Amino acid sequence: MKQDIDVIVREVGLRDGLQIHPVFMPTERKLDWIRAEAAAGVSEIEVTSYVPPKLIPQFADAEEVTVRALEIPGLTVSALIPNLRGAERGIDLGVHKLNFVMSVSKTHNLKNVRREREESVADFGRIVELVRAQPEERRPLIVGGLATALGCSYEGRVSVDDVVRYAVALVEAGADELVVPDTVGYADPAQVRAVFKAVFAELGDFPVAAHFHDTRGTGLANVTAALDCGVRRFDASLAGIGGCPFAPGATGNIVMDDLCFMLDSMGLRTGVDIEKLIEVRKIVSETLPDIEMHGAVARAGLPKNYVSAVTRLAA
Amino acid sequence: MKQDIDVIVREVGLRDGLQIHPVFMPTERKLDWIRAEAAAGVSEIEVTSYVPPKLIPQFADAEEVTVRALEIPGLTVSALIPNLRGAERGIDLGVHKLNFVMSVSKTHNLKNVRREREESVADFGRIVELVRAQPEERRPLIVGGLATALGCSYEGRVSVDDVVRYAVALVEAGADELVVPDTVGYADPAQVRAVFKAVFAELGDFPVAAHFHDTRGTGLANVTAALDCGVRRFDASLAGIGGCPFAPGATGNIVMDDLCFMLDSMGLRTGVDIEKLIEVRKIVSETLPDIEMHGAVARAGLPKNYVSAVTRLAA
Repeated sequence: MKQDIDVIVREVGLRDGLQIHPVFMPTERKLDWIRAEAAAGVSEIEVTSYVPPKLIPQFADAEEVTVRALEIPGLTVSALIPNLRGAERGIDLGVHKLNFVMSVSKTHNLKNVRREREESVADFGRIVELVRAQPEERRPLIVGGLATALGCSYEGRVSVDDVVRYAVALVEAGADELVVPDTVGYADPAQVRAVFKAVFAELGDFPVAAHFHDTRGTGLANVTAALDCGVRRFDASLAGIGGCPFAPGATGNIVMDDLCFMLDSMGLRTGVDIEKLIEVRKIVSETLPDIEMHGAVARAGLPKNYVSAVTRLAA
Repeated sequence: MKQDIDVIVREVGLRDGLQIHPVFMPTERKLDWIRAEAAAGVSEIEVTSYVPPKLIPQFADAEEVTVRALEIPGLTVSALIPNLRGAERGIDLGVHKLNFVMSVSKTHNLKNVRREREESVADFGRIVELVRAQPEERRPLIVGGLATALGCSYEGRVSVDDVVRYAVALVEAGADELVVPDTVGYADPAQVRAVFKAVFAELGDFPVAAHFHDTRGTGLANVTAALDCGVRRFDASLAGIGGCPFAPGATGNIVMDDLCFMLDSMGLRTGVDIEKLIEVRKIVSETLPDIEMHGAVARAGLPKNYVSAVTRLAA
């Protein structure tokens, strides 16, 4: 199955989308969402965050969500970790991937985790040590996230040199994969090209994912630019749920359904059945009637006589 | 002023956006919109359509809107023409540009104007003759539009060869400029590249504009792809007003405000002041409270410490 996929799309709505939503989504409904999206062909889902539940009550059920998501055959289950304690929780649960995040912007990292960036790199190193000290079957993959790589709500533009510096630092510290997020939705396609070209120039064909927010409407344009640079892993959230704490009313992650349509229409196989994926939106809208849902394909439908990339390539 | 512009953005909301809106926008408010947008730096506006008013009552004031828009210094005033009669009306009014449209899809052209495509090319030729027979000061520029070039609601995908064939036919018949529309919002960036590359391969540096709809969320991604091919003229509508008669509830043209932000952020000068442009939205929303408004930048605001392309390039 995996060999027939050109681009890996990863659902992050259960973490990035729900984390600022004030209403708790019941555990069973989160699992319905995860199962339905896996059944639609999404191969990797960030299911929760191992932050202290008192900080974000939405993730009070992190343990149960993880354990039961791990029962779904073929699904890569990942979770955000803010620190070493989060990594310990993930390892104990047997999660497949740990997503660690630091900020490339000095100010953002200080405000967000009260650490200098070099301290965050050192934290990441300790997480890698912890993982490597486990027996092989207990070792998750470790993703290094470079928040604010494409813009910072305190500093504005972030230097490409800084992005490359911390990308290299996290890889040298032992990351299996990187993710470059446009945390606050500032990026444009020219900037995306500049950043990813610089990162790939330094790291060769190391796996680097892109994580865009559609805050200023440029999300899929940025995907187009990242594809040109060779990026083949994208984060998105179903119906674009989520938002931006710095921009009330703003849109969240890029819309998974629209992303899958665009990639498929371009002839890039994602493994996702778009019509099945669109059906999954009901689980979210029925459970959280007040959450803002986005997505153009869900409104407009697929084009007349639309033929999926898989079928076109087989013909 | 014009020499400081890298990309020409053209407002089409008064025509493409309003044409399916059931409520008549009072003439004075249309003119407020046109004036305010011209003051924000938009250099070309499609102000109306010379269709019979009984067909589209929204354009019953086509004469007055045209005449008074022509009083705005520096503004290029264009209008859609369905046929020779429309061209005559435009010439009599002294409009700067006539936008003629035929469909590349055989079925769409038959359904829309009850003509074979070759008949439409011949119609276009007669319009060119009429224009060329005028004294020089009465001669508008003539734009040839290739509707459904990027997809057809009857036929689905449209052959690139057909797009090139009718592009060449309209240029040979005397077009001063072409516009390639994604009439029903089917296009993806790969397809946009294929079509524009093929057109430019045949026509060299002939002026070709792109006209995208955001019906399936790919509008600005398609702009990114078209920019790569050398396109430097884009149609858009303020707040993305409009829709798609074939997809109820669907979004309309790409959002002018988001387009201008993306281009500016990429370092491409449009001549438009984005903050002034966003202010113009109020004229539309106050006059037509039921019209659906889109636009991410208007909701989220500009990035922190944002510096316009003009200022950055001057530094």
